Amino acid sequence: MPRIGFIGLGIMGKPMCMNLLRAGLKVTAYTRTPGKAAEIMAAGGVFADSPAAVAARSDMVITMVPDAPDVREVCLGPGGIAAGARHGMLYVDMSSIDPMVSKELAAALGAQGIRMLDAPVSGGEPKAVDGTLSIMVGGAEEDYAEAEPVLRLMGTSVMRMGDIGAGNVTKLANNVMVALHIAAMSEALTLAAKAGVAPSLVFQAVRGGLAGSTVLEAKAPMVLERNFTPGFRIDLHAKDLRNALSLAHGVDAPLPLAALVMESMQSMKAQGKGALDHGALVQFYEKLANVTVEQ
Amino acid sequence: MPRIGFIGLGIMGKPMCMNLLRAGLKVTAYTRTPGKAAEIMAAGGVFADSPAAVAARSDMVITMVPDAPDVREVCLGPGGIAAGARHGMLYVDMSSIDPMVSKELAAALGAQGIRMLDAPVSGGEPKAVDGTLSIMVGGAEEDYAEAEPVLRLMGTSVMRMGDIGAGNVTKLANNVMVALHIAAMSEALTLAAKAGVAPSLVFQAVRGGLAGSTVLEAKAPMVLERNFTPGFRIDLHAKDLRNALSLAHGVDAPLPLAALVMESMQSMKAQGKGALDHGALVQFYEKLANVTVEQ
Repeated sequence: MPRIGFIGLGIMGKPMCMNLLRAGLKVTAYTRTPGKAAEIMAAGGVFADSPAAVAARSDMVITMVPDAPDVREVCLGPGGIAAGARHGMLYVDMSSIDPMVSKELAAALGAQGIRMLDAPVSGGEPKAVDGTLSIMVGGAEEDYAEAEPVLRLMGTSVMRMGDIGAGNVTKLANNVMVALHIAAMSEALTLAAKAGVAPSLVFQAVRGGLAGSTVLEAKAPMVLERNFTPGFRIDLHAKDLRNALSLAHGVDAPLPLAALVMESMQSMKAQGKGALDHGALVQFYEKLANVTVEQ
Repeated sequence: MPRIGFIGLGIMGKPMCMNLLRAGLKVTAYTRTPGKAAEIMAAGGVFADSPAAVAARSDMVITMVPDAPDVREVCLGPGGIAAGARHGMLYVDMSSIDPMVSKELAAALGAQGIRMLDAPVSGGEPKAVDGTLSIMVGGAEEDYAEAEPVLRLMGTSVMRMGDIGAGNVTKLANNVMVALHIAAMSEALTLAAKAGVAPSLVFQAVRGGLAGSTVLEAKAPMVLERNFTPGFRIDLHAKDLRNALSLAHGVDAPLPLAALVMESMQSMKAQGKGALDHGALVQFYEKLANVTVEQ
């Protein structure tokens, strides 16, 4: 197995990195807040003091950071991966970012002999801990073949989607659907509440039919119990929608509904509710309709 | 069991009526096109020449007709149910209509001593044939209790949702969600296609996660195979969205996404595509983006 570098030990990155250590891989890690690395070091990981130092000790470097500016900084900034990597090193960005940026970085790193895959994940913290994430990969076939055994230590569904950027395109298409499913549930339950029919009964009546969805099963009970503990935060989902719309503008794909839901999420952020679970988007509709969706 | 009257022997009504005959119930039927009643008569049903004549021979009259004007005509028009019904008869409208009309008809019939339930169904022709429909009922508890054994001969999920109109409110909330799920799939797959990632791979990658839905499982394969044989026709789904928006306007529930999808369906009808399956809504987005969602 390749020597692994792992950069970014947040809510997702740390458990993903732990799964590599548990499988016996050699891991050198870096994170901006060194305190977050204690668990990794206790499990046998080595801490390095910069992305460049990580890259110098690794055959394959993985990043899991918040957004495109962070990825760019970690790759090309001072003390970045490009400054420490040997020629031919494999770089796997597992962050969720605009695929246009993935392409741009792959070109810049490629000029220095660094191969790159984009490999964003879906599934959230519990699946990161269990190693059961879905991982959507873009890049050259031979690079994918090299990374796949490592990725399978973190995810149960690992698929090559196409060339560089295709992983993030898939992730964005996924998150467009999830956002619209939350909005669909919200419009339907708000309508029922305003029309005097108990939303909990509507949920029971429709879940088994064509209106059924994984979002409905996961989020309708949270809405009915008024539990908006994340889960997946509205401000992070808004970031994904922003990236989806940015991609869509780049490739001329009009997304009228996604654009509208983006604005709904902006309204939630404006109300100071960006840190709630994305199921709280129902509150945007509740405010529009002056009603609360309850049992 | 009560003597049944059954009015409306279309794609849905005929197999529903057949299930009552198979269970041994006495059925008197009426339909505007008498030729459609041949199968019913062969199975032991009696044909009457007007809704009034049906009502005169029945303890419980069921209607399954296209839309509110048809229901109104069959109930209150010349030779209608109200003209033939005995005092205390139970009337069950299983059509999908605006719940405001259900309430209005219940009031008009109630003044003549006729009790009414609204009991629209979901599930389409195959489930009508199998007797496995979902039936969402509105009306008084005691009337529901009386109708339930008969309804269970046609559906496996039979639920009382509340007072008169609550069945149709639920049906409309259901069909708002289904429409938005089709639109969600369409935006996501169109985006993927424009960004150069195979929609069939995206479907495989996302179906097991939070983006999963019954619509995605049912319709994505049809989209990828360019099979738009109904199923459920766009013009009928547009009727449901129009009724949902009419209800929403009546109760002050803003439905920004449903309104937008309504306009998309209108565009499909304008292009002469109203008779296609509602999964063909993807063609609205394909036309916007100048792309085809294929394997």
